[in-house]
Amino acid sequence: MSYPVRPVAWVRSTRAEPTDDGWDAERAAIELADDVPDEALDGLALFSHVVVIFVFDRARDAPPAPFARHPRGNGAYPRVGIFAQRAKDRPNRLGVSTCRILSIAARRVEVEGLDAIDGTPVLDLKAHIAQFGPRGEVHQPAWVDELMASYFTDPPS
Amino acid sequence: MSYPVRPVAWVRSTRAEPTDDGWDAERAAIELADDVPDEALDGLALFSHVVVIFVFDRARDAPPAPFARHPRGNGAYPRVGIFAQRAKDRPNRLGVSTCRILSIAARRVEVEGLDAIDGTPVLDLKAHIAQFGPRGEVHQPAWVDELMASYFTDPPS
Repeated sequence: MSYPVRPVAWVRSTRAEPTDDGWDAERAAIELADDVPDEALDGLALFSHVVVIFVFDRARDAPPAPFARHPRGNGAYPRVGIFAQRAKDRPNRLGVSTCRILSIAARRVEVEGLDAIDGTPVLDLKAHIAQFGPRGEVHQPAWVDELMASYFTDPPS
Repeated sequence: MSYPVRPVAWVRSTRAEPTDDGWDAERAAIELADDVPDEALDGLALFSHVVVIFVFDRARDAPPAPFARHPRGNGAYPRVGIFAQRAKDRPNRLGVSTCRILSIAARRVEVEGLDAIDGTPVLDLKAHIAQFGPRGEVHQPAWVDELMASYFTDPPS
């Protein structure tokens, strides 16, 4: 059983290769696909953030990629399941990012914090709604904080 | 151009029909599909929340569903684009919810706040990582707060 999904938009980014970290240094926009009408973006400008669902189209599905691994292949991090990490080589190769909206022009949304490379197919955009949470107390293991330290902002060198 | 995506898990919920609001009254779990190994969940129990990506498999894709509409078909809300609302009748019919993890047993994650009905195909689970935001100041139009007032908790009757 499978479902076909199609691009409704495309990522335009100053990053062309799938490298880690430092995403805030890139400029990125989302451009509607030709068969999506302008009105699909109506009203989005009144939200501060948008949730972007995309396909890591140059990553490997799992399988053949493993269902458990050390994040970034780094043995200093625990070996955890693919659902306990954000690796791009995963079942269905889907990415989800919540991005700040910088501006919206006809058929194009400029965003900050989109960790997807140039040419990435976008499957959906959803206005970020605060009530969708997370609700309640939030926690995560310490290895995540270590891994995320340079994800958006590279450390000064 | 399209990509095939497949269920990696299934929603088990006490709600069987697609009705609005009051989701906190439901009990829900996510059960791994037969071809996904147990280890895919390793380490997830150390996170408080999980992001669930699913298919609204009983909804209508857009098109034929419209790309702009009044949320819930209610003229009291402004007519906005499909990307400025969370309606289930949308391009690719994808849903994303951030749920609190209640417990994890072998191949089964009990969650709170999953707004998906029984039998819904799940495409991915991602541990919720605080650094993924939203980052910066968050705002949304007033109609959203009105619409969301009873989304999780029904008002006392």
